[in-house]
Amino acid sequence: MRRVAIIGIGQTKFGEHWEKSLRQLSTEAGAKALEDAGLSGRDIQALYIGNMSAGMFIGQEHLGALAADQAGLNPIPATRIEAACASGAVAFRNACFAIMSGQYDIVMVAGAEKMTDIKGTDAIATLAGAGDQEWESSIGLTFTGLYALIARAHMERYGTTREQLAMVSVTNHKNGALNPLAQFPYEISVEDVLNSPMIADPLTLLDCSPITDGAAAIIVASEDVAKKFENPVWLLGTGQASDALALHDRRDITEMFATKAAAKQAYEQAGLKPEDIDLAEVHDCFSINEIIAIEDLGFCKKGEGGKFVEDGKIARDGEKPINTTGGLKSIGHPVGATGIRQIVDIVRQLRGEAGPLQVNGAKIGLALNIGGSGATAIVNIFGIEPR
Amino acid sequence: MRRVAIIGIGQTKFGEHWEKSLRQLSTEAGAKALEDAGLSGRDIQALYIGNMSAGMFIGQEHLGALAADQAGLNPIPATRIEAACASGAVAFRNACFAIMSGQYDIVMVAGAEKMTDIKGTDAIATLAGAGDQEWESSIGLTFTGLYALIARAHMERYGTTREQLAMVSVTNHKNGALNPLAQFPYEISVEDVLNSPMIADPLTLLDCSPITDGAAAIIVASEDVAKKFENPVWLLGTGQASDALALHDRRDITEMFATKAAAKQAYEQAGLKPEDIDLAEVHDCFSINEIIAIEDLGFCKKGEGGKFVEDGKIARDGEKPINTTGGLKSIGHPVGATGIRQIVDIVRQLRGEAGPLQVNGAKIGLALNIGGSGATAIVNIFGIEPR
Repeated sequence: MRRVAIIGIGQTKFGEHWEKSLRQLSTEAGAKALEDAGLSGRDIQALYIGNMSAGMFIGQEHLGALAADQAGLNPIPATRIEAACASGAVAFRNACFAIMSGQYDIVMVAGAEKMTDIKGTDAIATLAGAGDQEWESSIGLTFTGLYALIARAHMERYGTTREQLAMVSVTNHKNGALNPLAQFPYEISVEDVLNSPMIADPLTLLDCSPITDGAAAIIVASEDVAKKFENPVWLLGTGQASDALALHDRRDITEMFATKAAAKQAYEQAGLKPEDIDLAEVHDCFSINEIIAIEDLGFCKKGEGGKFVEDGKIARDGEKPINTTGGLKSIGHPVGATGIRQIVDIVRQLRGEAGPLQVNGAKIGLALNIGGSGATAIVNIFGIEPR
Repeated sequence: MRRVAIIGIGQTKFGEHWEKSLRQLSTEAGAKALEDAGLSGRDIQALYIGNMSAGMFIGQEHLGALAADQAGLNPIPATRIEAACASGAVAFRNACFAIMSGQYDIVMVAGAEKMTDIKGTDAIATLAGAGDQEWESSIGLTFTGLYALIARAHMERYGTTREQLAMVSVTNHKNGALNPLAQFPYEISVEDVLNSPMIADPLTLLDCSPITDGAAAIIVASEDVAKKFENPVWLLGTGQASDALALHDRRDITEMFATKAAAKQAYEQAGLKPEDIDLAEVHDCFSINEIIAIEDLGFCKKGEGGKFVEDGKIARDGEKPINTTGGLKSIGHPVGATGIRQIVDIVRQLRGEAGPLQVNGAKIGLALNIGGSGATAIVNIFGIEPR
């Protein structure tokens, strides 16, 4: 298997971009990644883009061609990958496969979503397309509803508390407050979370990641090319798995089998264990999901994720720093972009370029990107030395 | 580069499937491919699915997880690829890359679309998402309109006649009349085409491929695995390219630069020339597109595609048999499925299993799948012997 590494990263500010379209956001992120790598568009041999729902959000499909066109990259092959909120990381994985196959040496991977151009209620209906249309969204079950069911089950089974859920958001906002690209760069308190409007019991507004416009991009290169760059960040292991789309078809809704399966593959490929991970980006679309992710990735025993958060172990200076740049909650969650943004932030940390958010001595980082309520999970592990 | 081959094929009947959903169609096609290969679902290591617009057609994204779930294939990785009407072939290409990378040995690739669950006018609006939303669809330019502009330019530049356009549909229906899986399995005449309702001058109803439900699936394997099967059909070369999304940004609308670029890559990779191709599946979403494809693939000189058709050279027993099983026009065009259906039909021909549609002695087949009005083109060349 050919090794691959990341040699360039870029990200737009996440937020409500009323003055920018999807194509502008993706090109802005891509241009930043080129600048970061010291490359020009002519060096890019293929483009991948992760996007969940531009068809419903802005009436535009054919996102690969759109992104290549806007960036002036024709006639390179341009491919859009969709895996709901995991679109970004799955696009990255397939770009890596294309390089490993020997077809390309330098590939741009973008993730982008423009979510604010339609009404909020329509955005919620669009996002419901990540669940099971016939069994869930058609009866009005939204994603907050799905994760509220998961949260309630976890609380009843393991004694996870309402406050522990809130502490996930509080910790992520504490980090995001120092992230200039975050949509909501300020701190919040446990009381703020508990007193925010109820969305779906037990989840309140501040347990939920927001609706966001934004894009992120990375440049992936083959081993021979990457070695010529200053600080390549290497892919050490990758795993992707699927599970039942509808919650009622899962064996257990307090854990995510796809995450466990994907993590197993990625750890095995990297020859690493949970204790070897210096920091992780996990998919906190709702606070409960970060707690379950911490457990499913093996950072603590099953059922102890809430306590792990409460004990401060996920803090930047804690035992296992998680979402050190703000997570989906504070940075924002432009769904197709998130998987790439997570990788951008892992690369920043491993390069030692995370500024006030830097985790000292970080050498191995893990990113977990989840689609829907867990029907797709993808785990990628990165390091500053190839293996 | 690891070689890959196709070891199983399956296709549903194409048509209006009021009684079947997208997930049922994709599973039916996949089950047929497994049966054809003599494999069970347990043998499949990853799933790819090409689909253009399930979000807008049926309110369902996250198609990879959906297809794996419905087929009982969890927890294998499942990935949806979208490139408008080229989604199927781009999904195939990426499945091949994944195998070539060494990650998998046996991968299922499906293509599926359920287009009849929404109103016809909404289907047309959805399909417009393959064009440039800001510059084309937002002002009401439909795909028939786009291809009518292309047809008119081709007629003016090269003297292509209205009758030659009609003869594309006539030839394809003559083949499709013998295809039990076709949506419209009957013959039509030039007069039928000319007298059918005008959609966008000069294109009438019978110049246009229909709105269709359907799915197709293939099983792709690595060289070591494929050699254990009876009639593997080998991928000899693959090319994919992009062009400007909007027609007005193209240098010339009488040819498709993406097709020419993709064909160049595929021919070079295969070490073959246009004259080596025994038969081809090309993307006749509108009659004019088949004429342009014949030219851009190098089967005749630029501008002589109309005469090539008029002279009967594309007939099953002609100099260069094209769309020997009915093309998009007669078989139907469930947009995400078409690229896979084309490959299924090439495999049938190369195996010698095409029955009354068989092209005698066919050893090398080419499939051209186009997205939108030509912003994505993908060419794959197949043979009965590996190279």
